Amino acid sequence: MKAKVHVTLKAGVLDPQGKAIGHALESLGFEGVGEVRQGKFIELELQETDPDRARAQIEQMCQRLLANTVIENYRIDLEG
Amino acid sequence: MKAKVHVTLKAGVLDPQGKAIGHALESLGFEGVGEVRQGKFIELELQETDPDRARAQIEQMCQRLLANTVIENYRIDLEG
Repeated sequence: MKAKVHVTLKAGVLDPQGKAIGHALESLGFEGVGEVRQGKFIELELQETDPDRARAQIEQMCQRLLANTVIENYRIDLEG
Repeated sequence: MKAKVHVTLKAGVLDPQGKAIGHALESLGFEGVGEVRQGKFIELELQETDPDRARAQIEQMCQRLLANTVIENYRIDLEG
């Protein structure tokens, strides 16, 4: 089973990396660019085939390694 | 208009960051974890309201800044 995890900064948490991208886009001449925020996108392959158990396992992975839950949110999407 | 951009390594390109995550998950005791790949997830706010023009603008951003098209693919999703 494949899983996709999005890890994004919580609203209100400063995102210097996103800001840097925004400034770089402006320097390149792109106009009308508002807020830019950068997150992580992680694709995992799991041997687990039961969706509920897979989701529970990934939930644990996010809590323990993939996300810093003090400042980050995560979203789990399972695929076939 | 909001846009979401996924930047991922092309198939066949080594992903040491993904490998590191995989090893870390193993060390933490997670079993049955196959390949792990990490990409970037960028959220942008644009003043442009026309979907076609917005997509064209972001396409340019990806080509010129957001992705290294030699080794990375990108996917653009527009919202509202």
